[in-house]
Amino acid sequence: MSELRQDFTTREWVIIAPERAKRSNPLTSIKEKEALPEWDENCPFCPGNENRTPSELFRIEDSQSSWRIRVIPNQYPALAPEGSTTRKVEEGFFKRIEGMGVHEVIIESPLHNGTLAHLDVAQVEEVLHTYRARYNNLKPLPFVRFISIFKNQGETAGTSLEHPHSQLIATPIAPPYIRRKLDIALQYYDDTGTCLYCDLFQHELRVGRRVTMETDDFLVFHPYASRSPFETWIAPKKHQASFGLVPDAELTGLAGVLKNTLLRLHKFLNNPDLNCVICTSPTEDEHNQYYDWHIMIIPRLTTPAGFEMGSGIHINATVPEETADLVRGVRL
Amino acid sequence: MSELRQDFTTREWVIIAPERAKRSNPLTSIKEKEALPEWDENCPFCPGNENRTPSELFRIEDSQSSWRIRVIPNQYPALAPEGSTTRKVEEGFFKRIEGMGVHEVIIESPLHNGTLAHLDVAQVEEVLHTYRARYNNLKPLPFVRFISIFKNQGETAGTSLEHPHSQLIATPIAPPYIRRKLDIALQYYDDTGTCLYCDLFQHELRVGRRVTMETDDFLVFHPYASRSPFETWIAPKKHQASFGLVPDAELTGLAGVLKNTLLRLHKFLNNPDLNCVICTSPTEDEHNQYYDWHIMIIPRLTTPAGFEMGSGIHINATVPEETADLVRGVRL
Repeated sequence: MSELRQDFTTREWVIIAPERAKRSNPLTSIKEKEALPEWDENCPFCPGNENRTPSELFRIEDSQSSWRIRVIPNQYPALAPEGSTTRKVEEGFFKRIEGMGVHEVIIESPLHNGTLAHLDVAQVEEVLHTYRARYNNLKPLPFVRFISIFKNQGETAGTSLEHPHSQLIATPIAPPYIRRKLDIALQYYDDTGTCLYCDLFQHELRVGRRVTMETDDFLVFHPYASRSPFETWIAPKKHQASFGLVPDAELTGLAGVLKNTLLRLHKFLNNPDLNCVICTSPTEDEHNQYYDWHIMIIPRLTTPAGFEMGSGIHINATVPEETADLVRGVRL
Repeated sequence: MSELRQDFTTREWVIIAPERAKRSNPLTSIKEKEALPEWDENCPFCPGNENRTPSELFRIEDSQSSWRIRVIPNQYPALAPEGSTTRKVEEGFFKRIEGMGVHEVIIESPLHNGTLAHLDVAQVEEVLHTYRARYNNLKPLPFVRFISIFKNQGETAGTSLEHPHSQLIATPIAPPYIRRKLDIALQYYDDTGTCLYCDLFQHELRVGRRVTMETDDFLVFHPYASRSPFETWIAPKKHQASFGLVPDAELTGLAGVLKNTLLRLHKFLNNPDLNCVICTSPTEDEHNQYYDWHIMIIPRLTTPAGFEMGSGIHINATVPEETADLVRGVRL
């Protein structure tokens, strides 16, 4: 029998229906991918093709090759740092804002095939340092209210370029979706005097069966109400509302945890397409006591369809306790 | 320059960024599909293979072939009509409910290639009658709080079977996602004394430029804050909170509108994968004055990715006024 599980952070329900794995098993649906070369002459993100991207915003130099990380403006930006954030009334009815914001691309390595799962931990740490540096560079801009850092890996995860990269979008609004999560957490804080996310993470550590990794500063787990198979969260053990405030020492540890987590998913799921998102507080609210930043990883093994669109309820044909067990068993 | 548009029904923002169509044009990304045969001996939904499905729940007989529409239980149900809807505390922390509910499949035609866009209007009307009949059959069940009727057409829209069919899932909860939309509409009703959805539909008719079709009882339009290219709504002109309450005469008109709308999308987008969802009130709330049922059609031309997952903000590389114009221009 299936069950509905309530997401502790959003109050949405998820249907956990393992019988539906008989219909189409998400674990066997992954297509074999061709291995990528280290360098591709046609790739605008590969070394030697720097002139095919917009002008660089940030770089980490390398003594041997010319760079280790580059940050560039997105060539087709969803938002750009010009215009006004004034809400305008359209047709005397709707509300709109000019597309003011920032859209950057972080090229994570000179290697065309250098995914975070396979790079040196030191390089992964530099990627995280770059995320935080760009975040903190954009945070003071007067029109920025929220900064999303995310990664789309593979075609079904929405990327058009294979070369490993992440993106950053700074928006002129705190998204209602984020405000709702904060509202729930604030209500909980007022009710209990504690942070909902800290309490959730402590509970996961105490119970243990959905935890796939634990270090001094972080835990990795498959949420109780995972919306899709192998949904994975990386979370800090100490309260921290914003990714922009993570101290250096923790970024070092986080690099190892992130690489380990991605490598386990890579091995067990045979290089799945995936999305990776840093969930963090709005920029004006980053010292709050009721929300913790965390990283959410979603392998794209299934397709949200009409039911999900119409109800907000996701159907997951795997059981998080079981997927966590499978991932813990991977030999690295 | 792009812009952010606010969805009038959810208050979420959508980024309308037509420049991003240069990156990958959603209109040219559709793959050619092989034409399907009228009958496929391996298809469990084709005539002659009735014994390969669970026992039939409902049928519309045909004088020539044996049936025109069949309704069967889903072989791999997400929810089933057994158990209890009591909320249980799990691990002393989370909330869960046994997977109590109903999951049915509506086989829309004996024809393996008989999509709603191509069936006779009379057959489409019978499909709609079947939807309503199943809805009203399940509504009185004591554990049912919400009924979602939806259609996933094509692999990227989440279906595993080609034979045209829809699904119905009755849940033991009113989804928080739906409650939120109702809360917004109720607040609007209290503020203005009018139905948010009726006002929205009247506005669209008055402005006209996003409307692709209008009949005595219905309008079809591309929403101002469309989350994805060619998002299409079919809406009633008269206030009606629940699909279960649509009168016969309107179902007749709706059949023509639905067929016409799907046929236009089929022709213009070259048989796109799509989801089709009937949005309606929770079963206990179907006489409310502040919500209108409607049909939402989402061609799957793009992939929501990390940014959408982390922010709730969708990026749409097309402009609804322009897509409506393109669809209006299709010759049938």
